[in-house]
Amino acid sequence: MKLLLAGFGTVGSGVAKALDSKKDAIKSKLGGNLSVVGICTSKGTIIDEKGIDLPLAYSLAQEKKLYTHRNFDPNTSSEKAVKTLEYDCLVETTPTNIDHGEPGATLVRTALRRQKHVVTSNKGPLALNFRELTGLAEKNNVLLKYEATVGGAMPVFNLLEGCMHVNKIEKIYGILNGTTNYILSKMSMESTSYELALAEAQEMGIAEKDPSYDVEGTDAASKLSILSNFVFGNGVTVRDVQKTGITKISGGTIELAKKNGYIIKLVAYADAERMLVTPRLVPLHHPLAIDGTLNVIEFHTDMAGKIRVIGEGAGHMQTASAVLGDILDIAKSTK
Amino acid sequence: MKLLLAGFGTVGSGVAKALDSKKDAIKSKLGGNLSVVGICTSKGTIIDEKGIDLPLAYSLAQEKKLYTHRNFDPNTSSEKAVKTLEYDCLVETTPTNIDHGEPGATLVRTALRRQKHVVTSNKGPLALNFRELTGLAEKNNVLLKYEATVGGAMPVFNLLEGCMHVNKIEKIYGILNGTTNYILSKMSMESTSYELALAEAQEMGIAEKDPSYDVEGTDAASKLSILSNFVFGNGVTVRDVQKTGITKISGGTIELAKKNGYIIKLVAYADAERMLVTPRLVPLHHPLAIDGTLNVIEFHTDMAGKIRVIGEGAGHMQTASAVLGDILDIAKSTK
Repeated sequence: MKLLLAGFGTVGSGVAKALDSKKDAIKSKLGGNLSVVGICTSKGTIIDEKGIDLPLAYSLAQEKKLYTHRNFDPNTSSEKAVKTLEYDCLVETTPTNIDHGEPGATLVRTALRRQKHVVTSNKGPLALNFRELTGLAEKNNVLLKYEATVGGAMPVFNLLEGCMHVNKIEKIYGILNGTTNYILSKMSMESTSYELALAEAQEMGIAEKDPSYDVEGTDAASKLSILSNFVFGNGVTVRDVQKTGITKISGGTIELAKKNGYIIKLVAYADAERMLVTPRLVPLHHPLAIDGTLNVIEFHTDMAGKIRVIGEGAGHMQTASAVLGDILDIAKSTK
Repeated sequence: MKLLLAGFGTVGSGVAKALDSKKDAIKSKLGGNLSVVGICTSKGTIIDEKGIDLPLAYSLAQEKKLYTHRNFDPNTSSEKAVKTLEYDCLVETTPTNIDHGEPGATLVRTALRRQKHVVTSNKGPLALNFRELTGLAEKNNVLLKYEATVGGAMPVFNLLEGCMHVNKIEKIYGILNGTTNYILSKMSMESTSYELALAEAQEMGIAEKDPSYDVEGTDAASKLSILSNFVFGNGVTVRDVQKTGITKISGGTIELAKKNGYIIKLVAYADAERMLVTPRLVPLHHPLAIDGTLNVIEFHTDMAGKIRVIGEGAGHMQTASAVLGDILDIAKSTK
């Protein structure tokens, strides 16, 4: 199977690295090779129909010298590459934009219309256009997979699919954002203020310089809308999520909660009717009371009771692992 | 697809109930019906090639009057039914015997040799003969599925399979037995003795009259050996597990642990080399520190980090849900 990688930041280059380090295992599982025939960046595209040398591309990317690759073409944009190159599966890992979903949405749409499979780690396109894009995949008889968009390396959609064979899923609770969970854990455990906890998270690279996407609940909301679409098929978007961030939570509130046996968590909730992302009191021993940057998702089912999965919600190797899992699923089901 | 149910206790009759209550959903998913052509009990077999009326069989079973069914044949034993009837998939839910695995092992073996698919909730046959039985399934080109044997309704093998596409699993930790977890939680939270906590668990139906299978760690060990085979392919049996039960844990030990921020849990551990079931100190906020009858399984992977799944490890509807999931998987993959 021929792959086109659009985006070669931490996730995209992590996928390349994983494809290389796992090549023997992949070959023995698939009975064939996966080759990368194009790597698109915002400055141009490396093109090699015979398959790009991944360790070389990876090390050039680390040195920010991808443009020096002998097959680098500054005149082939991502859009042009996705529209014109010959490949079987687009691996779309461009940065998330939650207002308009671009450039990912156009890339995904273009590939699906060309009857190419798509794997994406980008929340924007799906949080805004889930029904359109999954419909487009179905109409064109190709697969669109997005395991990495929710819960990093946690196999959330895989797990849900298995459960949904038999069970009706009634509601979902989750802690879907590691940055806010880190800040709230820190405030609770060390009795520090929001400002101090945020500053430390920023120093550690857990929070962005502009933290608003995380701390206002937008990241959690976009993941929740993707989950809700998958489980309830209700065509919602991130804009339908009622959200409140964590910026107004004071150290005093957290102390008071602690005294009463609670911890404050940014909890995402969805049922078939509504979606909420909001700080909530969670009992200290509740399975949602996880610490640090962990993520948790809890499904309430009609027969199997409550099922919870906990894992690392972020990290480029973890996300690359989820992307690679989707690629292998597609390779297996189409061979 | 035609099913033969061997065993019609809480799990087997729960499966029948679920097959009936979910029949419309099953039909729309499979585009066809699942019919039950035989129900074997220790006293005889109900046989109906046209499909047994499940609500009737279920209500007769509740009244312990299955033998009054007009198609009940006291001269057809489970062994004879599995050997002679026409069916596509055996659903084996007879009681677990961890010393010799019978009657389940013979039933499973017979069905596989006749090239029938098998779904089982019975730990005995697999904890003793995993490699032989999975090999037999492979040789006969049929499926052997056993999701219900570990973690009740938790989709453990489904999840592991997804992870193992990409990840190498390095080790497994788990709390695999709800009875001992309930007793230990009770001892810790209410500062009661082992004897009192056990007596209460027995009153509530969480522990058996003879609790040794649970409290000596045998149940957890049998599940661990199945997990270990699945993940590491090492052909181990329950007899290879080094196990210590919880009967010697005093209230004093638990109090001392608590004072130091720990809780005592019966932890199952496996890597490619060894398997242990033993009481361990777990930090109070650790994800393994779950309370009550919950089960948890934690996998350490090379790329995805640690993944944990928490759910109800027992309960007949939960177990029936896992069995039904396996049946639907087989029906889908063979249609």
